[in-house]
Amino acid sequence: MNTIKTTEINTHAGQTVCLQGWVHTTRKMGGIAFLILRDGYGTAQAIFEGDGSGLPAPESIVKLSGRVQQNMQAPGGFEITNPSVEVINAVTEPLPATLGKKALKVGLPTLLDHAVVLNRHPTRRAIFKLSATAMAGFRKTLNERAFTEVQSPKLVGSATEGGANVFSLDYFGRTAWLAQSPQFYKQIMVGVFERVYEVGPVFRAEAHNTSRHINEYVSLDVEFGFIENHWTVMALVRDLLAGIFSEISNRCKNEIELLNVEMPAVPDEIPSIHFREALELITAETGENIIGETDLSPQNERWLGEWAQREHGSDFLFVVGYPMVKRPFYTHPDPENPTWSNSFDLLFRGTELITGGQRRHLYADYLTALEEAGLSAEPFVEYLEAFKYGMPPHGGFAIGLERLIKQLCQLPNVKLATLFPRDMQRLTP
Amino acid sequence: MNTIKTTEINTHAGQTVCLQGWVHTTRKMGGIAFLILRDGYGTAQAIFEGDGSGLPAPESIVKLSGRVQQNMQAPGGFEITNPSVEVINAVTEPLPATLGKKALKVGLPTLLDHAVVLNRHPTRRAIFKLSATAMAGFRKTLNERAFTEVQSPKLVGSATEGGANVFSLDYFGRTAWLAQSPQFYKQIMVGVFERVYEVGPVFRAEAHNTSRHINEYVSLDVEFGFIENHWTVMALVRDLLAGIFSEISNRCKNEIELLNVEMPAVPDEIPSIHFREALELITAETGENIIGETDLSPQNERWLGEWAQREHGSDFLFVVGYPMVKRPFYTHPDPENPTWSNSFDLLFRGTELITGGQRRHLYADYLTALEEAGLSAEPFVEYLEAFKYGMPPHGGFAIGLERLIKQLCQLPNVKLATLFPRDMQRLTP
Repeated sequence: MNTIKTTEINTHAGQTVCLQGWVHTTRKMGGIAFLILRDGYGTAQAIFEGDGSGLPAPESIVKLSGRVQQNMQAPGGFEITNPSVEVINAVTEPLPATLGKKALKVGLPTLLDHAVVLNRHPTRRAIFKLSATAMAGFRKTLNERAFTEVQSPKLVGSATEGGANVFSLDYFGRTAWLAQSPQFYKQIMVGVFERVYEVGPVFRAEAHNTSRHINEYVSLDVEFGFIENHWTVMALVRDLLAGIFSEISNRCKNEIELLNVEMPAVPDEIPSIHFREALELITAETGENIIGETDLSPQNERWLGEWAQREHGSDFLFVVGYPMVKRPFYTHPDPENPTWSNSFDLLFRGTELITGGQRRHLYADYLTALEEAGLSAEPFVEYLEAFKYGMPPHGGFAIGLERLIKQLCQLPNVKLATLFPRDMQRLTP
Repeated sequence: MNTIKTTEINTHAGQTVCLQGWVHTTRKMGGIAFLILRDGYGTAQAIFEGDGSGLPAPESIVKLSGRVQQNMQAPGGFEITNPSVEVINAVTEPLPATLGKKALKVGLPTLLDHAVVLNRHPTRRAIFKLSATAMAGFRKTLNERAFTEVQSPKLVGSATEGGANVFSLDYFGRTAWLAQSPQFYKQIMVGVFERVYEVGPVFRAEAHNTSRHINEYVSLDVEFGFIENHWTVMALVRDLLAGIFSEISNRCKNEIELLNVEMPAVPDEIPSIHFREALELITAETGENIIGETDLSPQNERWLGEWAQREHGSDFLFVVGYPMVKRPFYTHPDPENPTWSNSFDLLFRGTELITGGQRRHLYADYLTALEEAGLSAEPFVEYLEAFKYGMPPHGGFAIGLERLIKQLCQLPNVKLATLFPRDMQRLTP
């Protein structure tokens, strides 16, 4: 007798089959009882005579054999009848929360404390299936465009772009830092492969505890050469978002339904607004005078998101040309007016999801920019070697995987989109 | 005029085209000069009248326009004639080593010190193209088998499997460690998705400086449930290696040729030998008495690799059943004889490439195993929660990406298979 997947029972009607998995839930109804079996693929229902009092406790591992029968009332239209159950691993202790109900009704602290077992809930699995599929769509879209995947070191020995929000550690008697971004390495790798991407962890020692912050997250990074300017980069952002969401739409129909996800339409051209015009627009329309500001507040971003929806019917909006004073030293200025930069943020439903732009590519410009930023060139000597030996006009961007999924699923907290989140208080599980 | 890739000139004969890239090398020959242009895809040759004295220095970024002409003497059979060159970014300083020669003739220290620019050499690019393709083949093979990709945290707050060789750091006033393996998380995730994999960095504070050690590397991790025993895991290892090498064979023909890589054939069934028999065989055949040893030395592994080649015509050999005393506490013992374990190493050309096996899956067994190992259960409480709430028989393995590429390309040092290696002395570039 073949062991089959729960999702395969509809092709085995009338046959006796064997299934293996977790006891998702059991319930009795009159003189019969149901056992929902869960495996890595989905769930299947088995129906028992009697009150089900002898059935194994939820999350027990069982081997279940029986005859597949069509039943329009069963979930999926088929169920296992006359089943026999062999317990492989019995659970004896009560669960921290019920996994067998449609919604996982626990507070955030309980969910995070017991993520090891509560991530087994179907809604949690659906979220992380979306994450995995987003990564797959990211790689697929870039592979089709001749990008090469790289893996840069996370232990770094010289200055990184930020400085303050970096974890440090003892490395055989010296100080090492944990990379807060693969920014320098992906630029260096443009010199090697011209077009590169990376999927990997980044670490930020930010002492913030908000619904948008985690101290370790997965960064989807892209960088490529021979661009015209930041508009070339934004065109790729558009195609990449389309690729990611199309992969999710195609491969995650069940998860989208279960989580009630409203999939965004990525327009052929994502609308854009210059930072300066955004300030003027918000000032004129809301009465809040923000002319002269150098950044947008979360409220400003939300307002712009609603404006993009109202004006352009778009979940996405590019804000371009952020002031140079607010951007890191490697940002390329706007050649027409160097107060502004060739950079952008992408707002997705009113929250910043992607930051990117054109980078400087001339060695002399880096020396000047570092000096103007009050930074010594010495800690950057290896990074600067890339520019000393010929770098093309290039640019790129980064997407936070957890934030992408948070926005897509409209989750209230980014930690809900993280398997095992790290915050100021939390290092386990 | 369209900008095309260097690899596209053979489809543009007779046309005037534009190319962008790095000046790979220039040379004169009689009254003419050649410029080899390199971009992210490959190289193309341009031919100039005169002695080429005005041509830009190597690694300068140029835009090159000219007419494509067939010429059997040109590399690839086509070249650019009557070119005009626009310099986008001029290099003025001499390179740390010549990139335009067939071989990159530098010592390891120079190569590592200047990896930022020397990784641009075609042989270096080829190695990292193989790495990227190995990752793609790994994911493709597992996606086809319904595995789900996960990203586990690298900052961990509780005890990890090893203990000694772990980097620690200050995390908002507490101690955090850098994960030396996603072992615990991938097992936990078997409880969530049944079949999982991860590609990510791992960190080992090993104070060794050998040709086989680096302190940060990329680990390809696999774990899955409802296995029979370690033989189920080994069958997947076989299919996965076949998938990785077939992806490389199909997509890296140029790189294989350039690096002179001898691609291994993965047999339908990889030969195997029990650890106990391996000791007996080596003792009988070499005269070195190693009966009673609990591990194999690198020489023993090399001898077994040659034996597998001689006896089975195979580059691969499984050594199964390593003594329990030498395996971590989560290793499942051989039910027939608990001195031995349901674990394996895979030798590839006489060097250990993969370690894996069946894991324990019963909560009570974990408590006993920790006690027998002299470990308190307390730091493992979150990990153990997975087993408290139902885990199936499961197993998995890990492949070091850099070691895989080192063995495949027969490189003398694993650092040569690493973009920017980390060792006891090296944290940059």
